[in-house]
Amino acid sequence: MEVVRTVSAFTGALAAARRQGRDVGLVPTMGALHAGHRSLIDRAVAAHDHVAVSIFVNPLQFDRADDLDRYPRDLDADLAQCAEAGVATVFAPGVEEMYPRRPLTSVHVAGVSEPFEGATRPGHFDGVATVVAKLFSAAGTCAAYFGEKDFQQLVVVRRMASDLSMPVRVVACPTVRAPDGLALSSRNALLSDDERRAATVLWRSLRTGAGAVAEGEDRPDAVARVMAAVVAAEPLAELDYAAAVDAADLHVPASLSDVEPVRLLVAARLGQVRLIDNCDGRAMAGSGDGRRPAARRLVHGQGER
Amino acid sequence: MEVVRTVSAFTGALAAARRQGRDVGLVPTMGALHAGHRSLIDRAVAAHDHVAVSIFVNPLQFDRADDLDRYPRDLDADLAQCAEAGVATVFAPGVEEMYPRRPLTSVHVAGVSEPFEGATRPGHFDGVATVVAKLFSAAGTCAAYFGEKDFQQLVVVRRMASDLSMPVRVVACPTVRAPDGLALSSRNALLSDDERRAATVLWRSLRTGAGAVAEGEDRPDAVARVMAAVVAAEPLAELDYAAAVDAADLHVPASLSDVEPVRLLVAARLGQVRLIDNCDGRAMAGSGDGRRPAARRLVHGQGER
Repeated sequence: MEVVRTVSAFTGALAAARRQGRDVGLVPTMGALHAGHRSLIDRAVAAHDHVAVSIFVNPLQFDRADDLDRYPRDLDADLAQCAEAGVATVFAPGVEEMYPRRPLTSVHVAGVSEPFEGATRPGHFDGVATVVAKLFSAAGTCAAYFGEKDFQQLVVVRRMASDLSMPVRVVACPTVRAPDGLALSSRNALLSDDERRAATVLWRSLRTGAGAVAEGEDRPDAVARVMAAVVAAEPLAELDYAAAVDAADLHVPASLSDVEPVRLLVAARLGQVRLIDNCDGRAMAGSGDGRRPAARRLVHGQGER
Repeated sequence: MEVVRTVSAFTGALAAARRQGRDVGLVPTMGALHAGHRSLIDRAVAAHDHVAVSIFVNPLQFDRADDLDRYPRDLDADLAQCAEAGVATVFAPGVEEMYPRRPLTSVHVAGVSEPFEGATRPGHFDGVATVVAKLFSAAGTCAAYFGEKDFQQLVVVRRMASDLSMPVRVVACPTVRAPDGLALSSRNALLSDDERRAATVLWRSLRTGAGAVAEGEDRPDAVARVMAAVVAAEPLAELDYAAAVDAADLHVPASLSDVEPVRLLVAARLGQVRLIDNCDGRAMAGSGDGRRPAARRLVHGQGER
């Protein structure tokens, strides 16, 4: 495994791999790798001859300095995981390498960037789109793996790559969950024991919403209300948003019957930690008790970022 | 020479050339090729094994519908010129291919996009940066040739490619001029005979400004005033702006002595046609009569877009 620190070495390593006829997979991360990232890496390694992982905590996408300072970092452990998984190239640049001078250029994805996380975190998705445009530009032709956990990010990145004619295929991977349903996230490490127990409220809210859809509810606001009620019942959690949207562009349709696929989104604060989660709005459709497919997910779930 | 119409065929053609060990040069144009473009193409062909020319009139960068409608187009003549010059690949997509759906993604280059052309033509440089990001993304590793004629565009594009870590080296080429000094431009074809004669006022304004600098004037506003006075003396011309700026970032310095290189910029309207031009602010420094280097340029000048 080669660890490169500069953009030009990263570009050169992947260009050399392609010249040797290898198919390139890319897993962009902010490090602090957990089983969710590992599932992305494993999928990429299974599908490509040459897999690169980028590890860069991107200051542009943090709207709050304390969130950036607190974000967990553990490069040695990350490199060990990458080596064990069979990664060929790790790109781990410093901030000075990625932003040698104040960047004047920004990439904005209108529409899909604006609601939900975009409304709560000003500038967040411009920061994401800009750094991912840099990573994709430096990487060249490849398939890039992103987790469904950050669903709006996935929609923003996919649209950006398509609109800018980037030769990058964006591959979405399902969320990896703890046995009690909590989606894996680097931020989970920041929860107290009580908050960690309460944090399952996001998954419970999503299951309740998907249950309502399975029972025939087609009004997005009615689905959002039952999801919000689950979060309201948990004293340690404070709801940010709950919504049922068109998965393609995140708009709230007049009726869920008009839309396929539907995505349920939820965000809540547990003390100082803000968590997000989402699921397929029709995950429970067609099951006997409205719960089985979701429960199976806990066992067989894989892939996220 | 291969003419490709789709983004994927364009990406594939250049990737195949690189796999065969060829060095790729790219000349992005809006077609209506004249001797200025031809000089860019000739320079690229002299320096690279495989040269691609893109021909696309980009609606995003036109702030006025009538300007877009009126923009000259002649694909057959353009293709003949490219073939004669030894171009390997022409990329001539339709608007539907470049923008199959309303693009949500835009690229903005703060600072250098804002004054001069940016102030006069709202959204123009976002349109330029976005389409050039698409062309660079689709092209992959290459050297891209741009004329100094559109000097602010050159600065915007170079900064965008650098900020976004694109593996593209931006090569600047000097402006090609008619014997009377008028910079070649596709828009010159829209001038009446009287306007065409009056249009030399831009070049006369630049020479007068460079002469003032050569005589020791280091106040940017004083240089701009003598440039503006030349345009004011021409009844058919209406000044838009005249300025002496830092060539690196287009800011107006407190004193020209603090800056190297200096660039002189001028824009004026001749009837319905708006023309721009620019030159090295120190083009006449060190010459005996303050005119000779500029005059030589008329004979030996090459390259622009």
